[in-house]
Amino acid sequence: MNKTTIPIVKNILNANDQIAEENKAFFTNKNILAINVMASPGSGKTSLILKTIEHLSHECNIAVIEGDTAPVTIDADKISELNIPVIQINTGGECHLDALMVRNGFSQLDLTNVDLIIIENVGNLVCPAAFHLGEHFSIVIASIPEGDDKPYKYPNIYRRIQSLILNKIDLQPYVDFDMDYFRKGIEALNPGVSFFPLSCKTDEGFEDWINWLKDKLQDNN
Amino acid sequence: MNKTTIPIVKNILNANDQIAEENKAFFTNKNILAINVMASPGSGKTSLILKTIEHLSHECNIAVIEGDTAPVTIDADKISELNIPVIQINTGGECHLDALMVRNGFSQLDLTNVDLIIIENVGNLVCPAAFHLGEHFSIVIASIPEGDDKPYKYPNIYRRIQSLILNKIDLQPYVDFDMDYFRKGIEALNPGVSFFPLSCKTDEGFEDWINWLKDKLQDNN
Repeated sequence: MNKTTIPIVKNILNANDQIAEENKAFFTNKNILAINVMASPGSGKTSLILKTIEHLSHECNIAVIEGDTAPVTIDADKISELNIPVIQINTGGECHLDALMVRNGFSQLDLTNVDLIIIENVGNLVCPAAFHLGEHFSIVIASIPEGDDKPYKYPNIYRRIQSLILNKIDLQPYVDFDMDYFRKGIEALNPGVSFFPLSCKTDEGFEDWINWLKDKLQDNN
Repeated sequence: MNKTTIPIVKNILNANDQIAEENKAFFTNKNILAINVMASPGSGKTSLILKTIEHLSHECNIAVIEGDTAPVTIDADKISELNIPVIQINTGGECHLDALMVRNGFSQLDLTNVDLIIIENVGNLVCPAAFHLGEHFSIVIASIPEGDDKPYKYPNIYRRIQSLILNKIDLQPYVDFDMDYFRKGIEALNPGVSFFPLSCKTDEGFEDWINWLKDKLQDNN
């Protein structure tokens, strides 16, 4: 028998990571900045996206992928009303988006001239942490009424993000929330992560988040 | 060949449901009422349990199983400080408790004379919905700042509960929350479910929840 060379495949990615890499290459190739927005239910993912559209849509083209466990289009409808291309992914009860769902989603969107694609993940602080979607940046939206101990209790998701938003700071006078304790938890998990305390309701602090996003958009061009 | 009778096993349960049934039989046999507390992160599961202990511990014996994705004992410590038997289940990143984890948990607790076991599930509105633990009653804690659309967006968990708590009603003046819309969503999913708007912070409405629990404890004896 002739000695043959057995091909060795190195760095095998799991199926999700492989598709996520392909998604990312697709976005990068088209100069589209992709961000993955994760949070627990009710922290203000859709509010943040709506306000981000309001601040940015006059200077760049935005598209949105909405992840939901149920076939209701409450969030997608709000975005569509702003004349932003949006597609909803109904996970059918699944607790997170995965890279294949996202690919199936953006394949149905017209991405011509789109500069920024925002992916709203399912409301869940646990499962989405394990699934890359092809995003350039991941963010978590925490919120004041959720409490200051969340980084300690859901560390995995806080470890993998590039930007942390702390929403609903307008409620700070009415809620026990120790900002130092919260920040200490964050710094232990993800030192130096960009941090934006803000209120989607009052607009306080929102400009800093928008400036961060503008920087990333500029770097992407 | 002799004709033999082939045994037919009916109503085969999946492994989790089978262990859940065994857990429930164990609790029932010992006259222990078991409740499964589910909610998204930061809605006030631990606060509700602490306050329930405060209201009830002079008249019945309570034990607690704490589910957490991370090995921090923030919640279990608070309960232990009240001299309540407590065990923490660290799911190792898993997004829900299952019946086997709960069995492993209560096996390590002294349940002599215990009347009520409260199981605090992992903070998650999606995955825990699919896993019975052996509880007699399941409850969800929603909260005002999470918003009024949660039943529409996370229907599975609202469908399977016997009691719904709406926490943080002290924040109602500062948050847009349409109570009629919220209740309409609940009624469509779970008509007639027991509903307790309350505040763990101010104690408002808490007595109604305690009375519901006392009724169930009485029925159990």
